[in-house]
Amino acid sequence: MNGGANGGLSCPVPPNERERILLGHGGGGRLMHNLLRDTVFAKIPNCDPKTMHDGAILRSEGQRLAFTTDSYVVKPLFFAGGSIGSLAVYGTVNDLAMCGARPLALSCALIIEEGLELSILERVLSDMALAADKAGVAIRTGDTKVVERGKADGLYINTAGIGALDFSESNIGPGQIQAGDVVLLSGDVGRHGVAVLAAREGLEFGSTIESDNAPLWEPVRALLEAGIEIHCLRDLTRGGLAQTAIELCEQSGLFFQLDESEIFVLPEVTAACEILGLDPLYLANEGRFVVVLPEKFAARALEVLTQYDAAYARRIGFVGRQPGPVRLRSRIGTERILDMQSGEQLPRIC
Amino acid sequence: MNGGANGGLSCPVPPNERERILLGHGGGGRLMHNLLRDTVFAKIPNCDPKTMHDGAILRSEGQRLAFTTDSYVVKPLFFAGGSIGSLAVYGTVNDLAMCGARPLALSCALIIEEGLELSILERVLSDMALAADKAGVAIRTGDTKVVERGKADGLYINTAGIGALDFSESNIGPGQIQAGDVVLLSGDVGRHGVAVLAAREGLEFGSTIESDNAPLWEPVRALLEAGIEIHCLRDLTRGGLAQTAIELCEQSGLFFQLDESEIFVLPEVTAACEILGLDPLYLANEGRFVVVLPEKFAARALEVLTQYDAAYARRIGFVGRQPGPVRLRSRIGTERILDMQSGEQLPRIC
Repeated sequence: MNGGANGGLSCPVPPNERERILLGHGGGGRLMHNLLRDTVFAKIPNCDPKTMHDGAILRSEGQRLAFTTDSYVVKPLFFAGGSIGSLAVYGTVNDLAMCGARPLALSCALIIEEGLELSILERVLSDMALAADKAGVAIRTGDTKVVERGKADGLYINTAGIGALDFSESNIGPGQIQAGDVVLLSGDVGRHGVAVLAAREGLEFGSTIESDNAPLWEPVRALLEAGIEIHCLRDLTRGGLAQTAIELCEQSGLFFQLDESEIFVLPEVTAACEILGLDPLYLANEGRFVVVLPEKFAARALEVLTQYDAAYARRIGFVGRQPGPVRLRSRIGTERILDMQSGEQLPRIC
Repeated sequence: MNGGANGGLSCPVPPNERERILLGHGGGGRLMHNLLRDTVFAKIPNCDPKTMHDGAILRSEGQRLAFTTDSYVVKPLFFAGGSIGSLAVYGTVNDLAMCGARPLALSCALIIEEGLELSILERVLSDMALAADKAGVAIRTGDTKVVERGKADGLYINTAGIGALDFSESNIGPGQIQAGDVVLLSGDVGRHGVAVLAAREGLEFGSTIESDNAPLWEPVRALLEAGIEIHCLRDLTRGGLAQTAIELCEQSGLFFQLDESEIFVLPEVTAACEILGLDPLYLANEGRFVVVLPEKFAARALEVLTQYDAAYARRIGFVGRQPGPVRLRSRIGTERILDMQSGEQLPRIC
């Protein structure tokens, strides 16, 4: 690990980062980035961090398949608008969608804590079935393990997914991003993070803020069917819009210019963030994504997206013509650089 | 849950089985069987317990793929002959192999406990890389989550796998088992269970008993390439040979007759089991499988298998011509019925 790779002086790498895993290693920020680069990718061949994307593309007898996995450890198991069950389905379907892939099948592996009430397991499984139905995918294989009391927070779920790349001409990924591309955002941001935090801490904010968790294949399919050329898709999960933009910026080697006034945040989410000292741009979302595409397709793509997320899809910026960071023009016209956070604002968010 | 479904009076279903998850629900025995039937399959459509196999078979543009997943929660992380890393690779490769599928790609999802030493993570990842190399498969996608101190036992790993069904004529699964079929066993049994227990409890048995964990695609491929007609393959994991035979017996609706004198157990494993009061037939294995096939292919199949596991592959019994349980003829000529255990002899074995 390079000491100079620290994301900012305000977030120094703790002295024992080299020896032990910290909670922040799971947060999607600089610590995790470094752990993947220096430990995981260093040990496991064929995982090239430069092509790091939401899933791997396989070829089998001429057919292209997408393959992805995620474990879900969200705390608590239920929150406004969703649960670990809906997340586990949508999260993996969305990773496939970000590869431009139609979901073919999901797996479901449960790690259950001894003592979990069966009724809770049943609620979670019902949520998974409902979410799978909504996402148009079947859960086809699974596994069940039980660990002793105290050795898991009730339930952890892993789902893996296989997707079919029906649009053979598409080749979507961070490596395709080009200077001058436009950045679209599919909806408002920050709701999932606030919904989980509210459920965890028992907070109330006047009106209930529901997670945005939702399946994203349908809007992606609509974009592809409309013949829109897409360079990159990325859903905004851990680390939020900011972390996503920073990663795409690093992977493409080009700066991103974003306009804060075009990034829609619900007023109640803004209010909650102000009270809690959180930045909505770094909060997790589970049903939002960015599209990076050539300027000439931007208007048509926005038309297609607004069918799926009403008034909230927006053009939020563009890709610059030289290397650099993510620059955010604030509502009052000043500019700030979005830095990769060390850990994350909220652990265990998905 | 049907009260009458209890596997034997010696293992009564605990009164709170209906309300809470017990450690035994993860053991591969009757409790788990019922949990899957009454809760998981009842909630999640498209998982037909009657066709329950080690993986699902998908069709995509005419191509047949196998898809499987397993989480690994073995305690401790390292044991003689292997680790959670080698298990996580071989276990999933073997589930694909049991579908007759060549492994195409694996995923690797880590749930890491805060405070885990990085050197331990590195050792595990190195074991995974080595095992993947030995099994001829690449780890292509992954995920990393971190949970708080005390919320996992160092590390849980999930792997999912995609396999290609190259031998299009093969249609392997419990539904293919026929009356009069022969049952072959690929090697000695009981080593993995004893190796993990020894590491967990710090036991020593004179000589070190190493886990049998190994990839099984090569022997399966050799059987298929030799043109041997295979009705069913099943690797012997949780619950061991006994549990596997009981499940295949239930799924095929035909009794199994096994001959104990043909089931090879290393003398040191037998000795350890006698001291510990364990039955090697119910102990987990991670590199052994049974082949159920027509009588006329048995001799040739044994020839092929012995190339891979020296002197230990054996014909251990046959499939009867009517419904019934698993009957085991003991070394002294008596007969016993193998019952599904309620939980498992050893939790957290894989």
